[in-house]
Amino acid sequence: MDPKAFHTLSYGVYVVSSWDNGRPTGCTANCAAQITSSPATVMVSINKDNYTNKCIADCGHFSLSVLSENSDPSIIGTFGFRSGRDTDKFENVAWQVRDALPVLSDSCAYIVCRVIGTMDTPTHTVFLGEVTGAEKTSENTPMTYAYYHNVIKGKTAKNAPTYIAQETEAGKYICSVCGYEYSGNIPFEQLPDDWRCPVCGQPKSVFRKK
Amino acid sequence: MDPKAFHTLSYGVYVVSSWDNGRPTGCTANCAAQITSSPATVMVSINKDNYTNKCIADCGHFSLSVLSENSDPSIIGTFGFRSGRDTDKFENVAWQVRDALPVLSDSCAYIVCRVIGTMDTPTHTVFLGEVTGAEKTSENTPMTYAYYHNVIKGKTAKNAPTYIAQETEAGKYICSVCGYEYSGNIPFEQLPDDWRCPVCGQPKSVFRKK
Repeated sequence: MDPKAFHTLSYGVYVVSSWDNGRPTGCTANCAAQITSSPATVMVSINKDNYTNKCIADCGHFSLSVLSENSDPSIIGTFGFRSGRDTDKFENVAWQVRDALPVLSDSCAYIVCRVIGTMDTPTHTVFLGEVTGAEKTSENTPMTYAYYHNVIKGKTAKNAPTYIAQETEAGKYICSVCGYEYSGNIPFEQLPDDWRCPVCGQPKSVFRKK
Repeated sequence: MDPKAFHTLSYGVYVVSSWDNGRPTGCTANCAAQITSSPATVMVSINKDNYTNKCIADCGHFSLSVLSENSDPSIIGTFGFRSGRDTDKFENVAWQVRDALPVLSDSCAYIVCRVIGTMDTPTHTVFLGEVTGAEKTSENTPMTYAYYHNVIKGKTAKNAPTYIAQETEAGKYICSVCGYEYSGNIPFEQLPDDWRCPVCGQPKSVFRKK
């Protein structure tokens, strides 16, 4: 079995959100799909270790914010490489309540769902949601997972189904929080002290030389 | 609810296949995703009206052939706009048996699965499969659903979850089988008589003027 075969599957990049006792929480996800058109249903797959999984199960509703190529890539790090258990992920991002659920402003569409079914798997729960609200909010191109990897050079969180231990070129600087590999034209050492990881927003000090 | 929001979700283009009493059958699908990495599991969503749905349920196994941007687009029509009930869809395509399942040769990867779970929805069955074999067979770029729509100008089959009744520009020639809208430089009337729809392979005679 060649794990590279799994990399040929195509995905988008989303933030799946819910309420945690009145506080918004959420996580980055790449596995979301429309399942039926009438009634409109959408599925998301969320790792059981993600705090968002428990919140969706408790709340019975979730929202999907669709990131675009113009979305700030630090959203992916904020929602993908930290836990909502002990972090307010929504603290520094613009968000609003749409159809009673929190959605990110810096996205090109949102879909709000009521959970009507679940499928249990060894590590993830697949939530099936009946769509209660949806809107396309910009004409920006939706971000694909391939774009995130190939253009933003982002990495995969360990809780993601697509995670495979990855090799990095020796001598490169890697963000120890999100795995982002610096590949800019300015030598890493000469970046200003207030430079931050473009994916997860962590400071220069968390980067490690491979 | 704005159905355009659903168009911002990202997908690939796949042929999902199984055995029908020893005969290969399959259908085009855009909804496939890796759900867990260890053990590796993959899900596909198949309309209950598709003959392939019954065959997967009976056989207990399915394969996923991942189409690339270099794959012959007529595969999409052959597998997406005809029924395997009364057609041998594999008759005119190259295919082989890999890990005991039929897979298409003109693809960039295949994944073979044993069904370990299902989720019922109003119109589709979500099959969860444990991966028993997988191989990346070329370096070609996997075809995304956006590429199929924007570059190949393909349409959506009525059984697909993403189907929305579509508008077509007046005066254009449309394939009555698959909905492909001709947009070549040669006027449609001047195309040779043996010209065929590049998506589903049907002859010129099935085209209708909008």
